[in-house]
Amino acid sequence: MTDLPGIVITGASGRMGQMLIRTVLDSDKARLVGAIEREGHDWIGRDLGEAMGGAALGVIVESDPLEAFARAHAVIDFTAPEATLDFAAIAAQARVVHVIGTTGMDEAQIARLEPASRHAVIVRAGNMSLGVNLLVQLTKKVAQALDEDFDIEVIEAHHRHKVDAPSGTALMLGEAAAEGRGVALADVADRGRDGITGARESGHIGFSAIRGGDIVGEHDVLFAAPGERIILRHVATDRAIFARGALRAALWGQDKKPGQYDMMDVLGL
Amino acid sequence: MTDLPGIVITGASGRMGQMLIRTVLDSDKARLVGAIEREGHDWIGRDLGEAMGGAALGVIVESDPLEAFARAHAVIDFTAPEATLDFAAIAAQARVVHVIGTTGMDEAQIARLEPASRHAVIVRAGNMSLGVNLLVQLTKKVAQALDEDFDIEVIEAHHRHKVDAPSGTALMLGEAAAEGRGVALADVADRGRDGITGARESGHIGFSAIRGGDIVGEHDVLFAAPGERIILRHVATDRAIFARGALRAALWGQDKKPGQYDMMDVLGL
Amino acid sequence: MTDLPGIVITGASGRMGQMLIRTVLDSDKARLVGAIEREGHDWIGRDLGEAMGGAALGVIVESDPLEAFARAHAVIDFTAPEATLDFAAIAAQARVVHVIGTTGMDEAQIARLEPASRHAVIVRAGNMSLGVNLLVQLTKKVAQALDEDFDIEVIEAHHRHKVDAPSGTALMLGEAAAEGRGVALADVADRGRDGITGARESGHIGFSAIRGGDIVGEHDVLFAAPGERIILRHVATDRAIFARGALRAALWGQDKKPGQYDMMDVLGL
Amino acid sequence: MTDLPGIVITGASGRMGQMLIRTVLDSDKARLVGAIEREGHDWIGRDLGEAMGGAALGVIVESDPLEAFARAHAVIDFTAPEATLDFAAIAAQARVVHVIGTTGMDEAQIARLEPASRHAVIVRAGNMSLGVNLLVQLTKKVAQALDEDFDIEVIEAHHRHKVDAPSGTALMLGEAAAEGRGVALADVADRGRDGITGARESGHIGFSAIRGGDIVGEHDVLFAAPGERIILRHVATDRAIFARGALRAALWGQDKKPGQYDMMDVLGL
Repeated sequence: MTDLPGIVITGASGRMGQMLIRTVLDSDKARLVGAIEREGHDWIGRDLGEAMGGAALGVIVESDPLEAFARAHAVIDFTAPEATLDFAAIAAQARVVHVIGTTGMDEAQIARLEPASRHAVIVRAGNMSLGVNLLVQLTKKVAQALDEDFDIEVIEAHHRHKVDAPSGTALMLGEAAAEGRGVALADVADRGRDGITGARESGHIGFSAIRGGDIVGEHDVLFAAPGERIILRHVATDRAIFARGALRAALWGQDKKPGQYDMMDVLGL
Repeated sequence: MTDLPGIVITGASGRMGQMLIRTVLDSDKARLVGAIEREGHDWIGRDLGEAMGGAALGVIVESDPLEAFARAHAVIDFTAPEATLDFAAIAAQARVVHVIGTTGMDEAQIARLEPASRHAVIVRAGNMSLGVNLLVQLTKKVAQALDEDFDIEVIEAHHRHKVDAPSGTALMLGEAAAEGRGVALADVADRGRDGITGARESGHIGFSAIRGGDIVGEHDVLFAAPGERIILRHVATDRAIFARGALRAALWGQDKKPGQYDMMDVLGL
Repeated sequence: MTDLPGIVITGASGRMGQMLIRTVLDSDKARLVGAIEREGHDWIGRDLGEAMGGAALGVIVESDPLEAFARAHAVIDFTAPEATLDFAAIAAQARVVHVIGTTGMDEAQIARLEPASRHAVIVRAGNMSLGVNLLVQLTKKVAQALDEDFDIEVIEAHHRHKVDAPSGTALMLGEAAAEGRGVALADVADRGRDGITGARESGHIGFSAIRGGDIVGEHDVLFAAPGERIILRHVATDRAIFARGALRAALWGQDKKPGQYDMMDVLGL
Repeated sequence: MTDLPGIVITGASGRMGQMLIRTVLDSDKARLVGAIEREGHDWIGRDLGEAMGGAALGVIVESDPLEAFARAHAVIDFTAPEATLDFAAIAAQARVVHVIGTTGMDEAQIARLEPASRHAVIVRAGNMSLGVNLLVQLTKKVAQALDEDFDIEVIEAHHRHKVDAPSGTALMLGEAAAEGRGVALADVADRGRDGITGARESGHIGFSAIRGGDIVGEHDVLFAAPGERIILRHVATDRAIFARGALRAALWGQDKKPGQYDMMDVLGL
């Protein structure tokens, strides 16, 4: 048991943090060796299990990442861009795998990961599910195989609390379709269709965003020609798939050379 | 056979006109007694069947509606707003049923139908399919039965040539949902969702418009709450359903009092 | 707080039992006053919260239903047919509402509920979700409104562990469609379509059962005619909706006369 | 124009025959040089266009295939197994491409095509649509990429007149999934699921067949795991796609060596 790779979870008290903790606890391929919260959070110093409303786990929530990372093999991190950049530097120092599920990082922030990736493995992905990454790859292939007689539309549905549209995953699918066709998405994206739009332009890629209830995440890529349609669809019903994907990435990264990787690498797609 | 109600079709050369003609010809409950095109159209004076690329029908395409309407029991009209207003006056004069499938009429134009409806039956609908009209009614009832814990979204898909979004039918469904909740659609409609939208507002009704290929028309009304969803869906695969609905309206109107009616009346919904 | 209706949960250690317990604990309209397991179960005598792997709740799991029911206003029971019949007699003696979500009761067993229902309120339903019950009602109405030109099919999808097909809810939807058409389901059901079936018979109602993953429950009622289709669809993504429906039934039953009720009564459909 | 490859259509009076004729007439890459019906059919000797209810085409329907094939570059044939075997021998004699869309040929009949394929190009496929053939290929790849944690189900919907279930295309998709997993479909197919089936067996491939209205053909391949699903879906809305695929095959075959080919070859998939 103690030979299993040790994992630290950042942002331990958040919804995704708790999901990650449960996933590591349930796994027989890894063990939980640390849980990080920001300085001043009321979970600091408490037993993690009790803080989560259950039985004691013998893991104390702490605020110093360096100390925690030093006794771990990997850190899984779904927090916020600036926090993630700090964690990357510390993970590089500790030579541990850094799995990044944080969303909303801009190009400049992503560039700032480069120094850390010279010393440690970083796996970063906008969506860590096996299915979504497979869908991205299929989308690119189908867009390549079909000509512009097939109109491409990306349709996504998410819960009522989501603040941006279209979803990051929908844009990733749109990028894959554009890449398959050899065009730049920015040149062909039809977003927020409303009013007198005129006829659809050939070669464009449309986006629709549906919001309601507690929908975890559903994505359709539609290829529609006269007389026939192909639809590639992914449905996520449990956030645990993102946590399981992140844990898989943490284990996969154990014997890899320093560098930046994504889920395609992890899944061997 | 000659006792069957006689039907005149306006806009005979158009895609919908030809669909209406074939529907009347295929029916054993009505007979075709006239086909109208605008003055100067090259079908004028020709045999309708031959103009359509088939065998002669013995019906000559003509440009004078009054003469044609005078020997008919009903006229079916999917043309344009101003033409329809002219036809309404002539149908009223001839005391024949006027079935109007013309789209894009504004409030002022609709008001101008009133004098004609004092002398003849007018049946007007944005969508003449049995299924869509049933869906409108179900949408209103479900919106009434469910509280705001259920988020309402209307999603529609149409062919690449459609120039407006959302479709008239989608707006009709949105109106029905708003009416069921006792609110005005204009106050709660979320259209063209794109960018940083913030969380979905409770009570709002969202719209999405998908465009591609030759999709005839598909409409979903989604009611999404935590843990469950209801979807009411209509799929049209053949424009003939609109023609069949229009013919049904023409026959239904034969023994009705002058006035304005819609497909709910015709279908007894 | 102590004025809130007190609820007892039977089958406390099961997946649905634990879901019901959490739902009552999360509610601000009811309080948990008892948890029943069968004699000899290793949870008996333990604190319920600790048995569930969390913090103590001050509720001790017990095996004597009469004692527990006597201090409650309602019992919620998703166990097995014979156990439910015993609980019904005891609930009647204690004059508390008995909410029955137990499935698989045969006609004879259902008849044996009658004596208990003379003394206490019984609410029994094959599916306690608001959405499914609404769908049943819509199905009946639509089947009534449409003629046999519309073929009816019921399609359901459930998780890989489900042992029967079609689902009880699918059969309930089929019954509603048959009732709407004034026929007996047994005379028109097409189940397990496979091989050389011949053309579909007009008026029949088809069933399809999809099994895979952890799908909670999805039901489609399809009405398909030439050129158009209507689909009424329900998607359950969280078993908590059944627990919430059961709690709603328990509260609704507080001021009702003894008798047998179903979710249509509770929801006022 | 007379340099365009000349096409002969067999079974000219049937629904698919007429669809093929219209497709060739509408094409600017081929010309219609013959139409075959069986000896004694009342279209024999008549002008094809007039027999179809339209204007004359200058093509006389004939019953002798050898004479017709001799002046053609390809024959497109959606008839019946024994007729197709006769046509194959004659096409081989005339050294013209033989495109076979005939369904229901058994193994022995398929083997009897071998001699003809030594002298001429034969393209045979159960489904000639671009989209379906792409879907078959994707299904195999996805089945290869995912492990048995993903349950595979094939769901198809067709019109009410279809006499067999599941469809040939559904079985083709099932074969592709089985091949991707390295198993024989016959060992793992779950067909006609009904009654007390027990839990789903891991590694099995389920089939469901929906029948109603005039649905042209819809196929879903579902891969369902705990927490996520992938669906590959094809929707055909116009039989013309099969005719267009057949014509594409006829043109593709012009410069190929004698042998047997399928649509994967034609589409370069």
